[in-house]
Amino acid sequence: MSKILFPLSKVYGLLEPGPVVMVTTARKGRPNIMTMSWHTMIEFEPPLVGCVISNRNYTFGILKATKECVINIPTAELAVKVVGCGNTSGATTDRFTTSRLTPTAAGRVKAPLIDECYANLECKVVDTRLTNKYCLFTVEVIQAWIDPSVKRPRTIHHLGRGAFMVAGRTIQLPSKMK
Amino acid sequence: MSKILFPLSKVYGLLEPGPVVMVTTARKGRPNIMTMSWHTMIEFEPPLVGCVISNRNYTFGILKATKECVINIPTAELAVKVVGCGNTSGATTDRFTTSRLTPTAAGRVKAPLIDECYANLECKVVDTRLTNKYCLFTVEVIQAWIDPSVKRPRTIHHLGRGAFMVAGRTIQLPSKMK
Repeated sequence: MSKILFPLSKVYGLLEPGPVVMVTTARKGRPNIMTMSWHTMIEFEPPLVGCVISNRNYTFGILKATKECVINIPTAELAVKVVGCGNTSGATTDRFTTSRLTPTAAGRVKAPLIDECYANLECKVVDTRLTNKYCLFTVEVIQAWIDPSVKRPRTIHHLGRGAFMVAGRTIQLPSKMK
Repeated sequence: MSKILFPLSKVYGLLEPGPVVMVTTARKGRPNIMTMSWHTMIEFEPPLVGCVISNRNYTFGILKATKECVINIPTAELAVKVVGCGNTSGATTDRFTTSRLTPTAAGRVKAPLIDECYANLECKVVDTRLTNKYCLFTVEVIQAWIDPSVKRPRTIHHLGRGAFMVAGRTIQLPSKMK
């Protein structure tokens, strides 16, 4: 997939609608993927994101140790692979191999981009004060990539127990909101 | 709207897809509404929600003082009113009057429910450690209400600058995720 840099000032518009994302990490050259639905924007620019990652998840320890990840945003075509990554453990499974997703090198972090995702956000962990109590990591997006050919991404949004809402039509209203 | 109690164990499924919500508060008998898109689930049960509310917003001070709010979830029919509440200040405008939304009494907090919203979550603030730095409040949902006649809520999801994605079709995949 051919991607271009995406302005950091616009990153909030990718995450604010609440899509399921895939978080990639790497430790000792071994990449990993996990599925995440619990995230929120915290600041526009630099873009800060709050990510809740269970300490029962293999990614938790890697993120704490390496302080780097990539937030990859999939669309509906990838739904089966997204759920597949949610149903196995990264500790015992190489999710890139089992899911047949393609890791590509990021620019500023060691964690890989998932090529098939239309957007990729390279992140550094900047605050862990709520990590022990709530498994909440605050990360800063330091570089962002997008596939400019995807105009209306059919993101997926988890409703619970394997049910997902697929992004529908777009409406435009007059707004003072950023 | 006729509502019934909704199990707290299922609340995550309402917020995890990332809808725009309306947060109501009350101080000295005066109710207020603000629009919020920056929120994440933090825990399943009791349901904890991370809410980012700018300290430039009138609601910030009220929430800090009263430690109570209601998270109301609107559907697409209310989009114009949702944006209207985002485009005015609660400090100078009675948003219930200008939006013609209907406040009804909550059971366990002083903040009102918005009757027209299909779901209402009564909340108490339980952690403010990241409030000064990131305007992040951790709230616990202590009682939840739902309109049982709404089977497929057309929630709205903010894409930025007044553009909203309306919830589309639902897909079901086999999942071990809760």
